[in-house]
Amino acid sequence: MSLKTQYYTASSLDGFIAAPGHSLEWLLQLDASETSYPEFIRDVGAIAMGSHTYEWILRHVTEGWAYEQPAWVFTTRDLPPIPGADIRFVRGDVRTAHEHMAAAAGGKNIWIVGGGDLAGQFYDQGLLDELIIQIAPVTLGRGFPVFPREAATPPLRLVSARTYAPFVEVRYEVQKR
Amino acid sequence: MSLKTQYYTASSLDGFIAAPGHSLEWLLQLDASETSYPEFIRDVGAIAMGSHTYEWILRHVTEGWAYEQPAWVFTTRDLPPIPGADIRFVRGDVRTAHEHMAAAAGGKNIWIVGGGDLAGQFYDQGLLDELIIQIAPVTLGRGFPVFPREAATPPLRLVSARTYAPFVEVRYEVQKR
Repeated sequence: MSLKTQYYTASSLDGFIAAPGHSLEWLLQLDASETSYPEFIRDVGAIAMGSHTYEWILRHVTEGWAYEQPAWVFTTRDLPPIPGADIRFVRGDVRTAHEHMAAAAGGKNIWIVGGGDLAGQFYDQGLLDELIIQIAPVTLGRGFPVFPREAATPPLRLVSARTYAPFVEVRYEVQKR
Repeated sequence: MSLKTQYYTASSLDGFIAAPGHSLEWLLQLDASETSYPEFIRDVGAIAMGSHTYEWILRHVTEGWAYEQPAWVFTTRDLPPIPGADIRFVRGDVRTAHEHMAAAAGGKNIWIVGGGDLAGQFYDQGLLDELIIQIAPVTLGRGFPVFPREAATPPLRLVSARTYAPFVEVRYEVQKR
């Protein structure tokens, strides 16, 4: 069984996780040496991501696959695997995959890497426990939304806010509807 | 002369200042008893707002006009004045109005109340100094954007982050381009 299902991501101040064309230049220009990531990833037992996130990694990360945890990549297309990486390509209802992730997580958390709509699909099914957002000191005006869902009634519950300059990390618990 | 031109507003976590139809129910349901507002408004010498913000006040605020400061309302339409309120209806380039506001502010700050595009017009002219955003613990998925501009190169400069539960207030200085 897993502990929590967490959507952990950086976002612009105005709510975008990527600029048009999936560009992350606005993010990568920033100093990310102060970060909660080492502490966060230690408690992650399984990860999930959408096809655009996976393809971004394929294009940009030259040092190979960064995750020891088993990974679920949600896609309706055929995507190339990464040699040596523990990846399953899945499609359809996130509930079935979530059961498998929870079993594989070995008592640790499930990390929804992105994108926003995939996190939203877990939220729609009542399977998302926390949003942990690193707010970057930029606005983009347009791009891919961090969380294209209404989570307002009830509101989220603020757990903490902490500065990892120049980022501000906010943590929220999803309240049961 | 004024000190700073500040865009001070509440926003959803995903970057909206109002839901579709200009609804603020998501915001008004929240406890706002902890707030920087009393300290903030003390240093404001002139205020600016767009027509939708003004009309929202007309419809919802029954206790009358809340501001002692002279106010500039940007609109291309004829809007009803509020008896006893110090309001000028203006249109067109924000630079001219900004000169008048700066003169009227008496050494205090100029507050851009909203909406996002009006704040963006001041930004476009290099006249916006700070963004002060109270992040509410909700996502809306759609609505009116907090700041429909790209301010990424250079990024904004994080000044502070402070919790006024359940809000997190982040302050940024606009960097000269």
